[in-house]
Amino acid sequence: MFLQTVNQGAKIWEQANEPATLQASPLLSVGLSFLAGCTLAVFGLAMRLRSAKEDPAITWNDSAFSMLSLGTEQSVKEVPKVLGRDKDENCLRRRWEAMLRRGQDKICAAIEECDGEGKFRTDAWVRDGDGGGISRVLAGGKVWEKAGINLSVIYGSMPWETVAAARERQAGYAKNAKPGERLPFFACGLSCVMHPRNPHCPTMHFNYRYFETESGDWWFGGGTDITPAYLNEEDMKHFHGTYKKVCDKHDKGFYSKFKKWADEYFVIKHRGETRGLGGIFFDDLNDRDPMTIFAFSEECLNNVVSSYVPIIEKNKNKAFTEEQKRWQLMRRGRYVEFNLVYDRGTIFGLKTGLGRVESILMTLPEVARWEYDHHPEPNSEEEKVLKCFQTPREWV
Amino acid sequence: MFLQTVNQGAKIWEQANEPATLQASPLLSVGLSFLAGCTLAVFGLAMRLRSAKEDPAITWNDSAFSMLSLGTEQSVKEVPKVLGRDKDENCLRRRWEAMLRRGQDKICAAIEECDGEGKFRTDAWVRDGDGGGISRVLAGGKVWEKAGINLSVIYGSMPWETVAAARERQAGYAKNAKPGERLPFFACGLSCVMHPRNPHCPTMHFNYRYFETESGDWWFGGGTDITPAYLNEEDMKHFHGTYKKVCDKHDKGFYSKFKKWADEYFVIKHRGETRGLGGIFFDDLNDRDPMTIFAFSEECLNNVVSSYVPIIEKNKNKAFTEEQKRWQLMRRGRYVEFNLVYDRGTIFGLKTGLGRVESILMTLPEVARWEYDHHPEPNSEEEKVLKCFQTPREWV
Repeated sequence: MFLQTVNQGAKIWEQANEPATLQASPLLSVGLSFLAGCTLAVFGLAMRLRSAKEDPAITWNDSAFSMLSLGTEQSVKEVPKVLGRDKDENCLRRRWEAMLRRGQDKICAAIEECDGEGKFRTDAWVRDGDGGGISRVLAGGKVWEKAGINLSVIYGSMPWETVAAARERQAGYAKNAKPGERLPFFACGLSCVMHPRNPHCPTMHFNYRYFETESGDWWFGGGTDITPAYLNEEDMKHFHGTYKKVCDKHDKGFYSKFKKWADEYFVIKHRGETRGLGGIFFDDLNDRDPMTIFAFSEECLNNVVSSYVPIIEKNKNKAFTEEQKRWQLMRRGRYVEFNLVYDRGTIFGLKTGLGRVESILMTLPEVARWEYDHHPEPNSEEEKVLKCFQTPREWV
Repeated sequence: MFLQTVNQGAKIWEQANEPATLQASPLLSVGLSFLAGCTLAVFGLAMRLRSAKEDPAITWNDSAFSMLSLGTEQSVKEVPKVLGRDKDENCLRRRWEAMLRRGQDKICAAIEECDGEGKFRTDAWVRDGDGGGISRVLAGGKVWEKAGINLSVIYGSMPWETVAAARERQAGYAKNAKPGERLPFFACGLSCVMHPRNPHCPTMHFNYRYFETESGDWWFGGGTDITPAYLNEEDMKHFHGTYKKVCDKHDKGFYSKFKKWADEYFVIKHRGETRGLGGIFFDDLNDRDPMTIFAFSEECLNNVVSSYVPIIEKNKNKAFTEEQKRWQLMRRGRYVEFNLVYDRGTIFGLKTGLGRVESILMTLPEVARWEYDHHPEPNSEEEKVLKCFQTPREWV
């Protein structure tokens, strides 16, 4: 079985290369070296905390942050063939990592082709053989100002209470753990943000991740969402339509549920606006066979290019005015506000103070703008899209 | 006596115009309409929470946010002569508000004069007669891209536990209150951020505030700090020297204590850098006669112009390169990171979702920039100032 892990609790860890190191993790609680270089796992876990309470940003306490990863982060010149430590190529964790890496390569290639000039640079790091990451960033392209895709594999441990919080939503988590204990976990994810130059080309973000705890809990999370500066209904129909098709193929209930979840998550509360025009978002997904969810996630990832790149191809050569660029930069300001004030992964990663900051903040735009008390002209294109940010609507 | 308030607990509130409304405040706990339009009081209180624990961002809970202000915020065309509700012109609260308003006017006038083109616009609001605010913002000036000064007067209530947290640091707070009760408070402050265009001209921030609780606790807080993009030792000596002189006049121990406090507060932890090159910062100041601290705060405020404007006059016409502007915008990105991730007042104000967002976010620069994994050239001017951000030093 590729998935010896599920429902077998601590046994999953015995397959790993260095069980001794892992066993030592509860002893490391004097230090804090959480998830350096990983926005993904952070994001996944943080989202679960969010699931448990209305507003986690104000309910988290120190313990939520006192996670541990094993060892320190080191840059490596050569990208490791495998970041995870499983020896069995067929186990879900290895297959998941391999699938995400294929996705990362394919998406980078498609973006480079569409850009025509920009190239992704690669930064890889490992953590004493136990996990690591690959950041790929394109800066100063012809089409994209900034585009980044991060892969991360993390082995860490978290307080039992952190998992227990998620239990409120999803019965059965952390059932073998006890208060005061630390729970080793594995997380592997791929996250991406792409900010084009042309105000008629939307920003796109995605994130797909898999999580496992030593106590036998596991779940998938992810989603792809789009953030235009101007409304183009046809483009939104294409983007949402692509994901509706993927969702429908797997579960007729997925699209409406995950579209709503995206609308509710990507909210800049203090503005009363969504960050963009949504997409799909899911977390804690473990209600069916893991390989079924794996396949769904894989298809979501494999449709990033087909959902997004045609919109860029269509708009990348459109003329735009200085005023339109200015509005785009103000919307980029909103992107920064969401990411730094509300995005669980970003805050979580930054607050520990030990993440790979450049990978976490790769999501920020090259340039952002804030104007005091700015209001678009009535009936302008800017007002039109703003109304969509204020009241999410259906696209397909 | 102007300060009937201190050590007389609930009695201070009986002098106010509408004690009945105030008495009702504990009953309002079903709703949350905290401090709309006020970054100041938020800041002051948040700083006190910070005093109590190492990192309040991760120890605050819902109760810390469940403050109440009385009534709803409304824009007013005419700026009210007095925002506070005290009838006695000589009470400390009225004198403090009047002093801050004089300071606001004088600073705006000096900045307009130095700018030569830009003018401050004024936005005033009140809250059903109980407090309010005056925001003054200059945008698109010749010298300043964006400069704002907010005055706020707040009557609200907070959970006893919130004040009790501060007690850990400063014995005696909230001594008459009991768990579960809400504690009415008064706060009045003036805050300011100014972002010039020229990369050789530093950004400046100040904040002076007075806080009182119904249980008889009171304190002053504040400070002025400077954030250059390039190091000019002479300018830093002038700025710090001005405040050292003000501090020394009042207490020979103030400057070193408050300079250190600024260096410790204005830290972007995930970068391992300070936001700028410091200044002075103090909070919970109540260890001497209130009018003595009032006078110290007033002198600090009155030296904003003399500490800052000469630096701008000296540098405002200096030539600069595109590269220097780019570096300035990257440092503005750091400013945004500090304000949105760490600044207690900003986060606190935004998370409640009911603040006057435009006043809170007035502090953000017009433009900010993020480049992936940027490192200044060795031995460049950029590296020189970065080293100062990484290791705070003495200037006078």
